[in-house]
Amino acid sequence: MSLQYAASNDNILLREDLDGVVTLTLNRPAQFNALSEEMLAALQSALDDLAADESVRCVVLAAAGRAFCAGHDLKQMRANPRQDYYEALFAGCSRVMQGIVNLPVPVIARVHGMATAAGCQLVASCDLAVAAESATFAVSGINVGLFCSTPAVALSRNVSPKHAFDMLVTGRFILAADALSYGLISRMAPDDELDAAVASLTADICSKSPVAIRTGKAMFSRQRAMSLEDAYAYAGGVMACNMMAEDAAEGIDAFIGKRKPTWKGR
Amino acid sequence: MSLQYAASNDNILLREDLDGVVTLTLNRPAQFNALSEEMLAALQSALDDLAADESVRCVVLAAAGRAFCAGHDLKQMRANPRQDYYEALFAGCSRVMQGIVNLPVPVIARVHGMATAAGCQLVASCDLAVAAESATFAVSGINVGLFCSTPAVALSRNVSPKHAFDMLVTGRFILAADALSYGLISRMAPDDELDAAVASLTADICSKSPVAIRTGKAMFSRQRAMSLEDAYAYAGGVMACNMMAEDAAEGIDAFIGKRKPTWKGR
Amino acid sequence: MSLQYAASNDNILLREDLDGVVTLTLNRPAQFNALSEEMLAALQSALDDLAADESVRCVVLAAAGRAFCAGHDLKQMRANPRQDYYEALFAGCSRVMQGIVNLPVPVIARVHGMATAAGCQLVASCDLAVAAESATFAVSGINVGLFCSTPAVALSRNVSPKHAFDMLVTGRFILAADALSYGLISRMAPDDELDAAVASLTADICSKSPVAIRTGKAMFSRQRAMSLEDAYAYAGGVMACNMMAEDAAEGIDAFIGKRKPTWKGR
Repeated sequence: MSLQYAASNDNILLREDLDGVVTLTLNRPAQFNALSEEMLAALQSALDDLAADESVRCVVLAAAGRAFCAGHDLKQMRANPRQDYYEALFAGCSRVMQGIVNLPVPVIARVHGMATAAGCQLVASCDLAVAAESATFAVSGINVGLFCSTPAVALSRNVSPKHAFDMLVTGRFILAADALSYGLISRMAPDDELDAAVASLTADICSKSPVAIRTGKAMFSRQRAMSLEDAYAYAGGVMACNMMAEDAAEGIDAFIGKRKPTWKGR
Repeated sequence: MSLQYAASNDNILLREDLDGVVTLTLNRPAQFNALSEEMLAALQSALDDLAADESVRCVVLAAAGRAFCAGHDLKQMRANPRQDYYEALFAGCSRVMQGIVNLPVPVIARVHGMATAAGCQLVASCDLAVAAESATFAVSGINVGLFCSTPAVALSRNVSPKHAFDMLVTGRFILAADALSYGLISRMAPDDELDAAVASLTADICSKSPVAIRTGKAMFSRQRAMSLEDAYAYAGGVMACNMMAEDAAEGIDAFIGKRKPTWKGR
Repeated sequence: MSLQYAASNDNILLREDLDGVVTLTLNRPAQFNALSEEMLAALQSALDDLAADESVRCVVLAAAGRAFCAGHDLKQMRANPRQDYYEALFAGCSRVMQGIVNLPVPVIARVHGMATAAGCQLVASCDLAVAAESATFAVSGINVGLFCSTPAVALSRNVSPKHAFDMLVTGRFILAADALSYGLISRMAPDDELDAAVASLTADICSKSPVAIRTGKAMFSRQRAMSLEDAYAYAGGVMACNMMAEDAAEGIDAFIGKRKPTWKGR
């Protein structure tokens, strides 16, 4: 199945479904997949659909053309020089980023080429990120007089403060190897093995119990904001519920019986 | 002196005291030192004793047999399929983990073989961890349909979110070298030098002022949860108290006089 | 222009201004630039001046002699053995450290030789840090019976907890390469290229819009203390304001027009 969002901008966001893996592809290659209003609306619409779809196992966020994403659409921004426009734009963009964080299933960035400004923020906002060795990352708004404030929110929750701030005030590009060691991405692959690396990760996730994966996605970011004591109280309750799921019983019995589990997804 | 806890399960947790260093050894090697109810009770009892013992300088958490710890006892869990049982189990386990964090002296994990699920959480919960080069780490509950929610609490307070989440949703093993670069362990040693590396670290800690070490252990995790301003107000007060201790006067005078200090522990 | 602060201790802190880059040089080389009461007062005075100076673009914190900074002045501390004295001393020191964090422009530590105890805290408190390859770092108060509690506040906000705690309880030195991988510094340079590396970084910062740099400095640390949702609401508003600045319009127009921007600083 292949859908397209945002009819007014044909095909700017493609959706492909395969065995529970949904791939969203940013498709404005000539504009390096800039996050125009329309692209953000299409992403929000896709996220809303995915949030309500129980059959989805995980989501891959990919991009067409030579770059992953170059951030906001600067021409469109300059064509609307009003503070209320910008406030609405950044609020909408922040809603998309938090929509990724709050989606019930893991979201994996598939990064090639460059990921800059809000494009780098997209990578930081995903739960997991697999990048080609040649991919590069920057929060480069500073080069046009616009500090990447909203990208800084996502970046600084992945990368240690000095490395993040150095990127933010200089706008310089970092290589995928540095992104991996900083924690901005979770995996790196040779360029011609990027798709295989993403497929291996999605296959791994799809081989697990759906209820356990959804349980984990929901609890992980929530507990991070809590005190240690509150986080344990919350996580203990979540884990007790998870143990009452049929999949946990099946999984443990299969493990003890040295056989492969058969998940029921509940 | 060698004690054993939990008389009903002979010798499941061994305690050895040597010059202020207490080594607790998980001793269910045939079960890869799984954290049964009895093992958790023995750990809690040992931690309670240690918390009240002014003579202890630091604690080493070690394990017998081929593995450090394989996490919860899955057979025992499946034999008690009730939500209230699981809630009590995870609450008790979380209490042990927080007991390590709140112990008045540093706790060092001595890791060999594998540390999985709540076993990996034990490593994450310790203040310091020295691992053999061949040691491996995983939060593998996802493989049996049970997302490692409580281990995620400890793991995500040591390891950056993408690396932690990748481990949690795939259950994959990471090597000691990655654990070191992620911050899950603080030191790594060749396998046949693991005991020497632990002994070197405990000797180093024992060579310091007991009052300064206890001061530091207590303040370190507490201040992390505070705002920068509150943390500084708290830490400044702690440090002023520390300066009034006899050991600080002795330590500074010895430093200025270019002699070795003689600690009084107060 | 070259100023000197704290007339009662001639030249203990030097200030040099060059094209918007202010270099503060700790200048008690015979005492390894120890942070005496007078040095802290001079730093506070310099920071107060800089906070009110709209012409400053960024600040470099450097040091004269063989060491960057060896922390507090232990002789002076021992000469005033009163709790209220220590409380005031650590409160004043904490005020200086937070003054760096809250300064409206980026502060870069230029580190050579050793940075120990409150000297290591200075490095941790700066927004950016460039170190010579031979530089070493320690939080070594534990060696004199005084746990580095206030340095721990800054260190643990840069470095993962196990690496930070290992440094704090052992007082051991780490190399610049480890400081870089831990996140304590942001850049490392061969010893004879340290000044060039600092100059390259300050030139890079000075080539950006002043309003965008100041916007970023102010928002970065503030948003880190917030929940994700609050941080996005705050950052979105900041970024909308930044877009209304003339520099953002100029920067984006220059980018679209493929020309160099001319900043107006507003």
